[in-house]
Amino acid sequence: MLRASICTIGDEILIGQIVDTNSSALSRALGSLGIKVSGMLSIGDDRDAILSNLSTLLRENDIVITTGGLGPTKDDITKGALYDLTGGAGWYEHPGQLEIIHRILRSRGLDVLDVNRAQALVPSSCEVIENKLGTAPVMAFRIAPGRFGHPCTLYALPGVPFEAVGAIPDVVSDIREHHRGELSEVITHRNVMTFGIAESALAKKIAPWEDALPSQVHLAYLPDPLVGVKLRLSIYGGEESSNERILDGEIAKLMDIIGENVYSKEEDSLEHAIGSILKAHGKTLSAAESCTGGEISHLITTVPGSSAYYLGSVTSYAIAVKESVLGVPPEVIKENGVVSSEVAKAMAEGVRKLTGSDYSVSTTGLAGPGGDEFNPEGTVWIAVCSAKETISKKFNFRNDRKRNIERFAASALFMLLNLLQKELEP
Amino acid sequence: MLRASICTIGDEILIGQIVDTNSSALSRALGSLGIKVSGMLSIGDDRDAILSNLSTLLRENDIVITTGGLGPTKDDITKGALYDLTGGAGWYEHPGQLEIIHRILRSRGLDVLDVNRAQALVPSSCEVIENKLGTAPVMAFRIAPGRFGHPCTLYALPGVPFEAVGAIPDVVSDIREHHRGELSEVITHRNVMTFGIAESALAKKIAPWEDALPSQVHLAYLPDPLVGVKLRLSIYGGEESSNERILDGEIAKLMDIIGENVYSKEEDSLEHAIGSILKAHGKTLSAAESCTGGEISHLITTVPGSSAYYLGSVTSYAIAVKESVLGVPPEVIKENGVVSSEVAKAMAEGVRKLTGSDYSVSTTGLAGPGGDEFNPEGTVWIAVCSAKETISKKFNFRNDRKRNIERFAASALFMLLNLLQKELEP
Repeated sequence: MLRASICTIGDEILIGQIVDTNSSALSRALGSLGIKVSGMLSIGDDRDAILSNLSTLLRENDIVITTGGLGPTKDDITKGALYDLTGGAGWYEHPGQLEIIHRILRSRGLDVLDVNRAQALVPSSCEVIENKLGTAPVMAFRIAPGRFGHPCTLYALPGVPFEAVGAIPDVVSDIREHHRGELSEVITHRNVMTFGIAESALAKKIAPWEDALPSQVHLAYLPDPLVGVKLRLSIYGGEESSNERILDGEIAKLMDIIGENVYSKEEDSLEHAIGSILKAHGKTLSAAESCTGGEISHLITTVPGSSAYYLGSVTSYAIAVKESVLGVPPEVIKENGVVSSEVAKAMAEGVRKLTGSDYSVSTTGLAGPGGDEFNPEGTVWIAVCSAKETISKKFNFRNDRKRNIERFAASALFMLLNLLQKELEP
Repeated sequence: MLRASICTIGDEILIGQIVDTNSSALSRALGSLGIKVSGMLSIGDDRDAILSNLSTLLRENDIVITTGGLGPTKDDITKGALYDLTGGAGWYEHPGQLEIIHRILRSRGLDVLDVNRAQALVPSSCEVIENKLGTAPVMAFRIAPGRFGHPCTLYALPGVPFEAVGAIPDVVSDIREHHRGELSEVITHRNVMTFGIAESALAKKIAPWEDALPSQVHLAYLPDPLVGVKLRLSIYGGEESSNERILDGEIAKLMDIIGENVYSKEEDSLEHAIGSILKAHGKTLSAAESCTGGEISHLITTVPGSSAYYLGSVTSYAIAVKESVLGVPPEVIKENGVVSSEVAKAMAEGVRKLTGSDYSVSTTGLAGPGGDEFNPEGTVWIAVCSAKETISKKFNFRNDRKRNIERFAASALFMLLNLLQKELEP
């Protein structure tokens, strides 16, 4: 089986100014080829660190993918280090990438500077995979056994996540082409998306099932505030179709145990699941947000094609907006307080009326920091509304502001999904 | 200088199902102590990988921090591996953590299961730092020179980001207490936040200044679609106050060159900068979003205390909502198309009128996938509006849906910030 590692390069990663998202994108891509990533390493823009760590990784792996340090600025030193690492024997300017550099800068109304042109210059020891989304080319170094004890390939990708992710399909086909014979191993994954049950309670509930799993099936619990607890079943090796039969069988048993907490059997999100149902039944949705401040609407509209079923939302941060735009009666707020079942219901019904949508969802609560005289920080009332009914529910979370907003939004989407499933897919 | 590394543990990281955000949070915390992180490693829930990699890291570092693999479920094997790695001599149940486990599960209305109780059980070779946010305790292993050639400390934190980040202050004070003598080295950072200028153009503009920087000043370019290009100036070593004098002097020179593109000299975001100005002048804000679908409102409300100046927003995904709620005249849409300067202006003026805010911002565009007959995917019209004027501007980005939405929102916030600075802080 091919051994692969990922190495992301950049001081901004090491000092924590940015979060490395390239590694996960790359490992997903390698996984799709049946290549299991043995490790992910992040190092700084430091020549010695780059040389020593990549030497080690190339000795231990068949494929090493780096990102970062290929920019036009002085702190980007990866290319020079790779030149030496691979026994540099001169440089050449890649005409295809140079043309892309010209096109991209023209489209931004910028001149092509020497630093930009220099990005098309690459070590003779590499083949270029053109980067159509940015100025820095992807470099593929095919390294002879002499250097690191066995033949290995080093891919150097740009660090900008948008460009790194954009280069993945080309890198994947390059691997397919140059490692065809070695891509035997299969990895089969299945996901079961649950919500509304804690990891430990879930573990207890499915323990007998888990204990009876065939030895080749690996189970992982992946808790996430935005999607609930994801259960991932994996089989490494074996044969795709038989793996799928085994996993489908196990998931069928699992559904008998925790079916009511499962909202999807795909690598899915609440907002995608909601979108699929609304689209399938030609129904529309709107939202009224107070404490979630637009997060619900943002999540719903991250789904491509959401304009087919999503009409819009009102973020009513101020009480006056709740009254004037959503038509929440002032006395309802006076009598019950802003964070109340009554106000949540009035908001949901108000935005449904305002937009003429079939369904609506609303939130009113306190994300923090700080609660008010009636409710502690982390309290939220959520309401979902259809032509038939309006349901409200209170939640309390004990997190920081950002995470409370996430939990509020996820809980609202789950309540909405349950209503949609009950009314549209009973 | 203390050498430190971070190792995050979990198959979900290696196969790319989650993005590791713990490493960046931990490295920022270590940086605040003047400890430079030499590397970040991610490995799977694999006993051999944990033992071999941590052995290497502990040989090369004074402090190693791990996160992950401490959960209540069967795939969490880190604790057992650390037991052996540190020459386990029995286990003990930590009463403080056990009490926390009971409190947390009670607060969630859950029973304390054996798997939960087992989380309070730790190797005798470690000291417990109580985890008040979760059931898995933080373990501090103080390892004698005999084992890895020098005295070193291993901190094992839970993997759930909320809990890992929550444990950081306690870990930081533990490091202060146990490594006081060694915390001599200073790292001084300064950030200059720019927007509206490409990295390469910025680099050319400031090249003479960059070339003249004192040798101890390290400059890094950090492009980010949501915040623009961040320039980070760092000095490693030296003495805090003199470092600050040097960096302040260099930043003053820099401002003469690119002042108009600089929106903050702090580790800041557009939404925080906007909030500071509005708060300082007692002005209010509202938003009307089409293609950004709530992202602008979400960003604005991630700022604690935003309710002091943010009244709310309307997400008008459907044309009917633009007309009925925001009062955009149907003929304006018919004559100019939905994605037009006129509609953007009418939306901004409409939501300002609707909410009675002092300022407003609006977006109408095509995030994709796919454009329409008039505009390509990635086109957006943005308008900002005050009592004095309404300004609109067209942008075109060539990205995927998610990134287009980010770029649209960031561009809108920057236009808004410019208007606020012009009118309120000339």
